[in-house]
Amino acid sequence: MEGALPLVKLIEEFSRLPGVGRKTAQRFAFYILNLPEERAKEFAAAILDARTKIKKCPVCGNLTDGELCPICAAKNRDASTICVVEDPRDVLAFERTKEYDGVYHVLHGLISPMDGVGPEQINVKSLVERVGKGNVSEVIMATNPTVEGEATAMYIAKLLKPLGVKVTRLAYGIPVGGNLEYADEVTLYRALSGRSEI
Amino acid sequence: MEGALPLVKLIEEFSRLPGVGRKTAQRFAFYILNLPEERAKEFAAAILDARTKIKKCPVCGNLTDGELCPICAAKNRDASTICVVEDPRDVLAFERTKEYDGVYHVLHGLISPMDGVGPEQINVKSLVERVGKGNVSEVIMATNPTVEGEATAMYIAKLLKPLGVKVTRLAYGIPVGGNLEYADEVTLYRALSGRSEI
Repeated sequence: MEGALPLVKLIEEFSRLPGVGRKTAQRFAFYILNLPEERAKEFAAAILDARTKIKKCPVCGNLTDGELCPICAAKNRDASTICVVEDPRDVLAFERTKEYDGVYHVLHGLISPMDGVGPEQINVKSLVERVGKGNVSEVIMATNPTVEGEATAMYIAKLLKPLGVKVTRLAYGIPVGGNLEYADEVTLYRALSGRSEI
Repeated sequence: MEGALPLVKLIEEFSRLPGVGRKTAQRFAFYILNLPEERAKEFAAAILDARTKIKKCPVCGNLTDGELCPICAAKNRDASTICVVEDPRDVLAFERTKEYDGVYHVLHGLISPMDGVGPEQINVKSLVERVGKGNVSEVIMATNPTVEGEATAMYIAKLLKPLGVKVTRLAYGIPVGGNLEYADEVTLYRALSGRSEI
């Protein structure tokens, strides 16, 4: 459809979204064309608002549109337990469990020498400072169970240990609702060695 | 992430896109947060532009940001052959073949009594008027090979025949690059009965 340039441009924008191909982008664009104009305006405003208003929390690096992130600002959270995660999405995942009442520290990445990401490129320094101020009893390393996640957890644990804080790592094991038959050997071994009495 | 409202709002907007679930919407939203601000503005503008500038062509119903759609406006297209399609996306599909030099008529829907869509709800009247003005030698019914697509093609053919115009239907057969083993019986039967000498 040469000529209908605004449509071509919109399809292009959508096709840059992660995992979106040409056909899906086209479907999205036609969805926009069929929206009431008011709703299309809201969609555009949501994009601008999110991009311009959301900043990193100066304490933990989580995303927020306020001064502190809602978790750091909350009075009912246990600030002596810090859960260290790679990404703000991981915070969302832990919050959904509704079981964790400590605070977080978001690294915004993992140490990955292959990709040229060293400890300086991620949010480690402020974590060490945070722990250094005292009042922290436990740091839970909750990075992903990947090579980079493990390496980052080990590196940070080594930095924090001298400060006299307890550093823990998430438990490994079989996922709830999973099927033993499909569990890989490493996971199964970890589940076995980490078994507990019932 | 209660508190980071602009993010929640953006995830919500993305999750309304067709076929997009919560997790994908979240991934899209984080993509936006990581864009340079200038690029996020362009994305938002693309949505507004497409929605506000794109109209239906008064002749054929195709989408355009100009007076006529680029195909109706083009001097090198054969206006005596009209290809009738359900949707502007189908125009794009035919244009990609680079083999069709006639014009189009976009119905914006199919007759579907089950969904309460009658001939008045789709762009049929203007097609009859277009053909009634003369100068049209062939109308190609290129609706989808579904129950609604067939019924709509038959209905429109009946309306147009009395005007003395040739009405044709797309050929049925095995798709190029397809596998006979997986072809359904109806398609195979149609391919057989429509066979041509080589």
